[in-house]
Amino acid sequence: MRTTAASVLRRAATGTTSRRTFTTQSRLQATYGFIGLGRMGYPMAKNLRTKIPESDKLYIHDVNPAILEQFAKEHKGVTIAKHVREVAENSDTVLTVLPEPHHVQNVFQQMLKPPTLLSDAPVTSERLFIDCSTIDPRSSKEVANATHSSGQGKFIDAPMSGGVVGASAGKLTFMIGAPQELVDRATEVLSMMGKRVVHLGPQTSGLKGKLANNYLLALNNIATCEAMNMGVKWGLDAKALADMINTATGKCWPSEVNNPVPGVIEGSPASKGYEGGFGTALMLKDLKLAMQAAMEAEIIPRLGTQAADLYKAVEGDESLKGKDFSVVYRYLGGQDTDKLEGIKA
Amino acid sequence: MRTTAASVLRRAATGTTSRRTFTTQSRLQATYGFIGLGRMGYPMAKNLRTKIPESDKLYIHDVNPAILEQFAKEHKGVTIAKHVREVAENSDTVLTVLPEPHHVQNVFQQMLKPPTLLSDAPVTSERLFIDCSTIDPRSSKEVANATHSSGQGKFIDAPMSGGVVGASAGKLTFMIGAPQELVDRATEVLSMMGKRVVHLGPQTSGLKGKLANNYLLALNNIATCEAMNMGVKWGLDAKALADMINTATGKCWPSEVNNPVPGVIEGSPASKGYEGGFGTALMLKDLKLAMQAAMEAEIIPRLGTQAADLYKAVEGDESLKGKDFSVVYRYLGGQDTDKLEGIKA
Amino acid sequence: MRTTAASVLRRAATGTTSRRTFTTQSRLQATYGFIGLGRMGYPMAKNLRTKIPESDKLYIHDVNPAILEQFAKEHKGVTIAKHVREVAENSDTVLTVLPEPHHVQNVFQQMLKPPTLLSDAPVTSERLFIDCSTIDPRSSKEVANATHSSGQGKFIDAPMSGGVVGASAGKLTFMIGAPQELVDRATEVLSMMGKRVVHLGPQTSGLKGKLANNYLLALNNIATCEAMNMGVKWGLDAKALADMINTATGKCWPSEVNNPVPGVIEGSPASKGYEGGFGTALMLKDLKLAMQAAMEAEIIPRLGTQAADLYKAVEGDESLKGKDFSVVYRYLGGQDTDKLEGIKA
Amino acid sequence: MRTTAASVLRRAATGTTSRRTFTTQSRLQATYGFIGLGRMGYPMAKNLRTKIPESDKLYIHDVNPAILEQFAKEHKGVTIAKHVREVAENSDTVLTVLPEPHHVQNVFQQMLKPPTLLSDAPVTSERLFIDCSTIDPRSSKEVANATHSSGQGKFIDAPMSGGVVGASAGKLTFMIGAPQELVDRATEVLSMMGKRVVHLGPQTSGLKGKLANNYLLALNNIATCEAMNMGVKWGLDAKALADMINTATGKCWPSEVNNPVPGVIEGSPASKGYEGGFGTALMLKDLKLAMQAAMEAEIIPRLGTQAADLYKAVEGDESLKGKDFSVVYRYLGGQDTDKLEGIKA
Repeated sequence: MRTTAASVLRRAATGTTSRRTFTTQSRLQATYGFIGLGRMGYPMAKNLRTKIPESDKLYIHDVNPAILEQFAKEHKGVTIAKHVREVAENSDTVLTVLPEPHHVQNVFQQMLKPPTLLSDAPVTSERLFIDCSTIDPRSSKEVANATHSSGQGKFIDAPMSGGVVGASAGKLTFMIGAPQELVDRATEVLSMMGKRVVHLGPQTSGLKGKLANNYLLALNNIATCEAMNMGVKWGLDAKALADMINTATGKCWPSEVNNPVPGVIEGSPASKGYEGGFGTALMLKDLKLAMQAAMEAEIIPRLGTQAADLYKAVEGDESLKGKDFSVVYRYLGGQDTDKLEGIKA
Repeated sequence: MRTTAASVLRRAATGTTSRRTFTTQSRLQATYGFIGLGRMGYPMAKNLRTKIPESDKLYIHDVNPAILEQFAKEHKGVTIAKHVREVAENSDTVLTVLPEPHHVQNVFQQMLKPPTLLSDAPVTSERLFIDCSTIDPRSSKEVANATHSSGQGKFIDAPMSGGVVGASAGKLTFMIGAPQELVDRATEVLSMMGKRVVHLGPQTSGLKGKLANNYLLALNNIATCEAMNMGVKWGLDAKALADMINTATGKCWPSEVNNPVPGVIEGSPASKGYEGGFGTALMLKDLKLAMQAAMEAEIIPRLGTQAADLYKAVEGDESLKGKDFSVVYRYLGGQDTDKLEGIKA
Repeated sequence: MRTTAASVLRRAATGTTSRRTFTTQSRLQATYGFIGLGRMGYPMAKNLRTKIPESDKLYIHDVNPAILEQFAKEHKGVTIAKHVREVAENSDTVLTVLPEPHHVQNVFQQMLKPPTLLSDAPVTSERLFIDCSTIDPRSSKEVANATHSSGQGKFIDAPMSGGVVGASAGKLTFMIGAPQELVDRATEVLSMMGKRVVHLGPQTSGLKGKLANNYLLALNNIATCEAMNMGVKWGLDAKALADMINTATGKCWPSEVNNPVPGVIEGSPASKGYEGGFGTALMLKDLKLAMQAAMEAEIIPRLGTQAADLYKAVEGDESLKGKDFSVVYRYLGGQDTDKLEGIKA
Repeated sequence: MRTTAASVLRRAATGTTSRRTFTTQSRLQATYGFIGLGRMGYPMAKNLRTKIPESDKLYIHDVNPAILEQFAKEHKGVTIAKHVREVAENSDTVLTVLPEPHHVQNVFQQMLKPPTLLSDAPVTSERLFIDCSTIDPRSSKEVANATHSSGQGKFIDAPMSGGVVGASAGKLTFMIGAPQELVDRATEVLSMMGKRVVHLGPQTSGLKGKLANNYLLALNNIATCEAMNMGVKWGLDAKALADMINTATGKCWPSEVNNPVPGVIEGSPASKGYEGGFGTALMLKDLKLAMQAAMEAEIIPRLGTQAADLYKAVEGDESLKGKDFSVVYRYLGGQDTDKLEGIKA
């Protein structure tokens, strides 16, 4: 029941010289497919197209034709596929970046339906499907099973973290769930869009790792907002308090990098009116996915139960809706301090 | 209402040459008092006695006479005071390290009662009382007020973090609440027992800072135990998961330094049967102090409310009682993994 | 510290013959003031005007002049006061039904300001101010103190339950906080607008009783929504489940009178699209008042902490906003059942 | 997915004249088996033996031989079975009252193992197995399936409420999950041990109903303890507050029947040092079963999550352990009032 797979932390190779180790000699050209060019997918596809040799091909598809036109205008060596089936037919590596489980299910249903992709001429090696969507592990497993039982390719999960900023800069972290023999091949592809690829175990492990991390983040964020709110209401200087916490046992990502009090960290969402960053609705989506997967393992989420209602309450407040999730500080009644306003002025 | 005091982070000076800046030329000898030689106080007093010049005097008192005898046997230049009043009469700096508010209140009532300490010959400079106990800010304020209105000295709060290990190694962090003019003098003394002194604002600010930090810690710990439990139950390798989290947004002190899964971090309490470390009962004590102070500021603690019942439940379980607070992982049903047991073997 | 006042449950006298027991022989006419003719106040004032003798006078005031015109058109023997001071000058009994503490504070500030009301001719007996608003006990105490120290009358709290339906039907329950000697007089007045007057102790006791009751109600409602949701999702017939619970230990007002599953109780808000009834926002307001008063007594609210975020989340959901608080059932994902839809058809 | 079975509330027939409606003419004698004579089972079996005709037979078994000897000494017409298989062989109706799922599983494994019971001479009608244990619906379903697929009888769930007092007085309420055609037969048997049999739907519905009810009870109890604690700390008279609540919307079983404040209700566990009643550990067991079944239906328990930790904390407190679950009032810091102590004196 426990995976014994070792943790594999791989820094992306900066060059591309050794990139073709997995391909056979007979292939002179690699073909890629990219489905879902939204806020994350678009800059990811951009980085991919930039890093692969000019001779490699990239097929793209999205429900929004305008976005496809725009991408094709901005890049050479890109083919707009009329439907996802066309992407699958023409690519030996297919990346999907989609919002919800049902989108992933639909796309794969269309790609895998008969006649088999195996007869398609351009692709000789085994197709690799890399799904970068954040969905529940159970749905991911079902799609993987359908893919494998169809015999048309391999499916791995590779959710990412780093946000739009990381996607644009090609500095995402990918958490992958894959059998050992596919790790090198997946790492090579994903390294073109990220700075780190972490192999966490067999298929679904990438998603599970991401959900565990984000469950923790969801709670650490509320805890930080509560602690900072207490300190400020008690009359402490917010920056002095944050500095102390960040050299002590309270230190965490929300206290250190994304501190919820305006002015404590320059350039943080809190210092910019809680704009940008990681939206509350996305945090809530991941929290719920984690809780759903926990329940399937007969685990009762503790603090997460309360946190989910709290995030929902934040997102339901007109004045807080759509902001970075550190805006929980405002929901709790957190205020600016004189000092900090001085800093901002 | 907001303090505008800047954060002052001071690394302890390693030498003692400049140590006497605050004293008057007429004094050739400094006198110290230390009340409360328990698990924390004993090694602190030991470090103090070692660092001060041989000619300086140290008066000690504790409710346990045996501990006083032992300390006097082990150190030169120590006088056992028959009561706390005798300590106060003979010391220009008095340190108190006591468990509960009522202990602090009793000790100060005895020290401050008439006749005034001001007439006592040996001490010419203004007495400084440094209370290192972790108590509620309101009680601390009351004792400070009583001290100041009696005109017999200055009272500052200086709770510490670092545990028995830090106290023994002289590597504690002190968070002090004091007026600016006392910061140098307090820092000089406390630096002999710690590696860092953080000035957070006027009196009570040290305690408030510590409580805000520990409130955050109490929640981050449960969140980490929940997230690791999910990951392990989902079949992930605990070490791989922890490694990933610690390079991602879930990173926090409990995930990185005090990971609750046995074997993930060598030498952690979890890897030693949850022995040593920070006891659940102490964590719960601080959490409750934070919540009490929050309520006085009309703040409703959110996740803390549930966390307090959870820690109480842990402490009420015979098999978990008295362990490091990362044992919450066991309370949640967290298990060892094959892999990790392999590592331990 | 504990009140020893006995519980006084008084059913309203149906007749009016003995109504004048507290007045002196010299008075032939009673005078009433009513401030705040909102959704609750309007029907209450209507009942009052209907029940008192024609010769008695009623002065009314509200921030909305149109509502005053309407009331005066519909009733005889009513005088529209230009301001609340005029109400106070002309009435020996003044009722206030206002939404927030600051409204109550403002109204009393205006009524009590010099010159003293005592010199006003029409009123010879001691003025009685009956505040039926649901506000926090501390604010109520402050207004009571201001009233008493001005020497211009007596102030008691008398929040009610029963909603708009109860107000219209004259069947409210009043919970009063008053000294024993005012209970008969207050009961006589309030009985004209309600069916029951409960004396819970000295001033503020009425509010405290109401808040304790509504704290309990807020939790029992969520608990009922959760239990019914479980039962229905598990495949039980909702009506059979509710019938069983209501003869067993789970029985409570939300399960028996206000069951959250559509169709279980005919005419319930749930059976009418969650319209009417007790709005979630009002429930949340009372819950927060109870929690605030709890914290002032150094009590940490347990389940209430989580419940407040949950109600806020419900009220922030566009599709649930403004509905009866049993709509929590929908928030939890609760569905109609085939059976019940059959009933509705 | 929804049951459409109507709610069937059946008061037990007081006489026994029509008791044999389901049996065939050819049978002159009924045979009963009873497995599990613990605190609940013993008085239930006693009532059964008293109500059935002298000529009917009763086979009993328990892991404790002493209890069997005692029962046989006290009653005529009882046979001690050497093992549960012997009970099954000789009875056409078998009742089981066992603490945990694995006990039920073990007992049925032994009873159902080959050779088939069908060949046993004494029993001609179809065997009915009535399991009165409170276990999780999933385990119950598994045992039912095993029974039915073996072809050796019918299995229904019939958990009860009413406690030891109800069991002794023969006034239990049974919640049954059974196909319609078995309801009359089961009702006839159970009516000899209870006053009410409620049919909630197909197999497992009895358990599901009980768990929904007890989930609600677990929360209403804490809510009541919190509300009463607030009221008393605010200075209200506990009895006056309880009387008011019980005529208002806060009314529930814990406020009305099992009020947690000593002295409010004569003879309640709270008034007898929290002795007797429904133990916290049992409440926690049922709460956890309900939450487990909720999670299997993909429902996140809300207030129950926090309640479970709170009950565990109560049960872990030496001074509160083993008491009635209304002792939560003490855990929250609830005190006696002068008034109430007067009543007790």
